[in-house]
Amino acid sequence: MRMDIVTIFPEMCEGVFNSSILKRAIDAGILSVHFTNFRDFAFDKHKKVDDIPFGGGSGMVLKPEPLFLAVENIKEQSGAKNSRALLMDPCGEKFTQKKAIELSKYDSLIFICGHYEGFDERVRSLADESLSIGDYVLTGGELPAMVIADAVARMLPGVLGSEESPITDSFYEGILGYPTYTRPREFRDMKVPEVLFSGDHAKIREFRRKEALKRTKKLRPDLLKNAELSKEDLEFLKSVR
Amino acid sequence: MRMDIVTIFPEMCEGVFNSSILKRAIDAGILSVHFTNFRDFAFDKHKKVDDIPFGGGSGMVLKPEPLFLAVENIKEQSGAKNSRALLMDPCGEKFTQKKAIELSKYDSLIFICGHYEGFDERVRSLADESLSIGDYVLTGGELPAMVIADAVARMLPGVLGSEESPITDSFYEGILGYPTYTRPREFRDMKVPEVLFSGDHAKIREFRRKEALKRTKKLRPDLLKNAELSKEDLEFLKSVR
Repeated sequence: MRMDIVTIFPEMCEGVFNSSILKRAIDAGILSVHFTNFRDFAFDKHKKVDDIPFGGGSGMVLKPEPLFLAVENIKEQSGAKNSRALLMDPCGEKFTQKKAIELSKYDSLIFICGHYEGFDERVRSLADESLSIGDYVLTGGELPAMVIADAVARMLPGVLGSEESPITDSFYEGILGYPTYTRPREFRDMKVPEVLFSGDHAKIREFRRKEALKRTKKLRPDLLKNAELSKEDLEFLKSVR
Repeated sequence: MRMDIVTIFPEMCEGVFNSSILKRAIDAGILSVHFTNFRDFAFDKHKKVDDIPFGGGSGMVLKPEPLFLAVENIKEQSGAKNSRALLMDPCGEKFTQKKAIELSKYDSLIFICGHYEGFDERVRSLADESLSIGDYVLTGGELPAMVIADAVARMLPGVLGSEESPITDSFYEGILGYPTYTRPREFRDMKVPEVLFSGDHAKIREFRRKEALKRTKKLRPDLLKNAELSKEDLEFLKSVR
């Protein structure tokens, strides 16, 4: 997969793309990441990417032209057939794990990042879709782009090792993850549940499933509506107060 | 405000804290940011921060002790009275703009970041609260910590200039932002709405409010339940199909 980040702050993204899962995917040749500073596509003498809003108001607004030219240049350069341009946008569709899996199937993702100010409304027509990572206000689209890139990169075949299957992740099958424990067996009077030492794999599996269901019902009951639940799960949930 | 990031990947965060709003807040003396690598608090000879999960299963689990010692050390060093330890956790409470405003009132925020694997369940007792930035799976807590730090830093008094009031932000008053436009007046056959050139401020204000309401009803009707709406707003919304 090729990822293109369209931003006037490429240096903001370096630490994240140079470490962790993204670095691993790049090193393995599964992912390539390219930065385009759309200031390079502002052709007035001051390389201005923003201007005052029509109709008045505070702040500056990103002009449409540099962003259009930057994205068009990327599409021409990459030649990817199966490409998706994503606008980082607080008004966008909520990004979810399901969307991460969907996006992992494209050959090319183009992340369009605004910064500080809003962007001209016409920029929307440049993107295939608008995505929001949550109901909060950030200074720019760079952090959302990195969040989506990380979540998508994990889903690319070959990126996670076989020992890191996403099966234990929260949101896998639509519910929260089960509690995990490691050494020491007792830490400051807090003990690891006995069943985990029983060696009885069926019992451990059942314990974990029930803990995951209990936690989901307590903390995120909204998730249960769309979760993949068995008859046993549903019966157990009924018994949880 | 003091922010402490507890992570084994401090280098992942540098680009974000060295640019944009966070840098501005640091340069202005409003914010100080400290990194603690909790590997420095692993006192076995291999400085091991993780171990295999009790009860079997894939992946490694972060041990409780290094995280406890790291956070306790921070609390001792900082001496902050009004401090909040936040666990970056997919099972946590959903982070929202309201929470960003709430957190901006503390003197000290401690961000506890896991990475790759999960953390030992007992780590939860170390945090004052657990936060999730959305329903997707990330490789670690570093990106969520940066997202929350950015959203909170914007809300610290003196960080945003007076020309950047949060009034035009999406989620301000609980609805999406209105569309903004800048030069050129016509770009590739897409025209800026005429009303914005009318010079009639009351009319422009009304246009923007209605556009924001329409957009919210279309894209995020769920937000309207908790939004601050006037009688006029409600009447207008009724007329929108």
